[in-house]
Amino acid sequence: MNELRKDYILNRYVIIATDRAKRPAQLAKQPQKAKKGICFFCSGNENLTPPEIDRIEKDNKWIVRCFPNKFAATNTKGNPKINTKGLIHADAFGKHEVIAETPDHKQQLADLPINHIKLVLEMYQKRLSAISKIKGIKFVSIFKNKGKEAGASLLHAHTQIIAYNNFPTLIQEEIKASKKNKKCQYCSIILKEKKSKRRIKENKTFVSFTPYASRFPFEAWIFPKKHKTSITELDDHELIDLARQLKYILSKLKKLNAPYNFFLHYAPGRKDLHFHIEIAPRLSTFAGFEFSTGTVINVMSPEKAAAFYRR
Amino acid sequence: MNELRKDYILNRYVIIATDRAKRPAQLAKQPQKAKKGICFFCSGNENLTPPEIDRIEKDNKWIVRCFPNKFAATNTKGNPKINTKGLIHADAFGKHEVIAETPDHKQQLADLPINHIKLVLEMYQKRLSAISKIKGIKFVSIFKNKGKEAGASLLHAHTQIIAYNNFPTLIQEEIKASKKNKKCQYCSIILKEKKSKRRIKENKTFVSFTPYASRFPFEAWIFPKKHKTSITELDDHELIDLARQLKYILSKLKKLNAPYNFFLHYAPGRKDLHFHIEIAPRLSTFAGFEFSTGTVINVMSPEKAAAFYRR
Repeated sequence: MNELRKDYILNRYVIIATDRAKRPAQLAKQPQKAKKGICFFCSGNENLTPPEIDRIEKDNKWIVRCFPNKFAATNTKGNPKINTKGLIHADAFGKHEVIAETPDHKQQLADLPINHIKLVLEMYQKRLSAISKIKGIKFVSIFKNKGKEAGASLLHAHTQIIAYNNFPTLIQEEIKASKKNKKCQYCSIILKEKKSKRRIKENKTFVSFTPYASRFPFEAWIFPKKHKTSITELDDHELIDLARQLKYILSKLKKLNAPYNFFLHYAPGRKDLHFHIEIAPRLSTFAGFEFSTGTVINVMSPEKAAAFYRR
Repeated sequence: MNELRKDYILNRYVIIATDRAKRPAQLAKQPQKAKKGICFFCSGNENLTPPEIDRIEKDNKWIVRCFPNKFAATNTKGNPKINTKGLIHADAFGKHEVIAETPDHKQQLADLPINHIKLVLEMYQKRLSAISKIKGIKFVSIFKNKGKEAGASLLHAHTQIIAYNNFPTLIQEEIKASKKNKKCQYCSIILKEKKSKRRIKENKTFVSFTPYASRFPFEAWIFPKKHKTSITELDDHELIDLARQLKYILSKLKKLNAPYNFFLHYAPGRKDLHFHIEIAPRLSTFAGFEFSTGTVINVMSPEKAAAFYRR
């Protein structure tokens, strides 16, 4: 029997369609074909991107590099103020940046050594700290789109940052829902899930699991075990522990050639929301039912997905 | 300058990325290729579907036909009751049906004559009335997925119905938001939009427009001008007027080979939510930014989209 499940804390429902269940291999995709032509993100083509913002070097060569998105969704030319007279609108004020995760076109994030992934995360910290200081910016979204079905137009491994003048409804709801009797509900969810059938992996600082009401086949969440509120709070050892978790999960997804998004969940300037990373493999499509109800049909149970990750 | 916009009533934001704007032709897709093999939905293959539920005939042959979905997300074998002890869950109780809109494999819904489309809508009425009577069902979602990117696995023109034991969060929010001083806000939105730059078309019963905070390129909404609360309230003339609106919009989308979803928005058993149909062309992909914030980036302004529809 298929099962209707509600998220731990949010008013978000899914139907886990075990009747339609598939084995991981049945959901696997073909590897994406490389496009011909010049890659703007490759080493040697730095002059083809807008002027560089930041870089992390090794042996005098960049290995992680940040620059503005050429086709920016937000910029700081306009006015951040939201106009509430009549229909509510504003300039899309903010920053839109790209982080090239490696100079090498052929490497995915999952392929990089732990120490290199750690430097990518360090760049997240640096840019988040810098952009958060800009007056008028209410939220900084750090996310990765990998593969066409996940919205990526370029193959070269990269992360994007979109900062804007709106505090997302989703994060507001999550802050509200995650508090119960002044305590963080995620703190207790983690304790249960690290012993459940949905556990993926645990190390000193982090634990990962497939969420009870997974919306995506193989959806995975990575939480710091202590109540951290932002990636900027992590020290070098903790960043290494996060890099290990990411590499482990993304390497498993690579076996399925799974397109995916991942994104940082946190509430800027607040201490109440438990920072975490959500990984959303894009092996299925939201369709009419999802858009009309908000309820998502997922053909892969999180328990089976976790078994795949642990294997 | 790109613009941040909020939905008329919901806490739903979009960035209308006019800086990245494209002409309609640039968003157009290639036509989908036909798959080889037997089509279960075609005339002559009725024995390949689960036992028929209902049909509408002309000259002793069916022209609209309803049967259970072979790979049902919901069924009535289980218990509709939601278990609220611990993690909230239930059997996915309900009905999952398919409506073949035509016996002819080669015709899209947009190609059918108005009178035929009207009979498809009549089938919606019939099934909605019948399914709503089943005890334990809280919502009946009627939706169409057209094209692979819209989640359709079969090419033959069809609509789906998924009824289930949950009253969707989205509809709850919409009910709450659409009331102001005990009045329906949509009633006044319609009056404004039918004179705005976002108007598409108007007839005696219906008006269509592109919503101010469109989440999809060429998103279109069709509203009855009077405060109707369900498709089941429409008489024959009104159904014809709805069929005209649908045909007009879907024919325009066909020129772009646009995959699309459409779905009925209404609140079963309630008089407060203004019934309407939302059409969501799937020419773009929700990615990491959308999932991390709930804010959607749309490269096509609704004003430009409406001009395309009016052309």
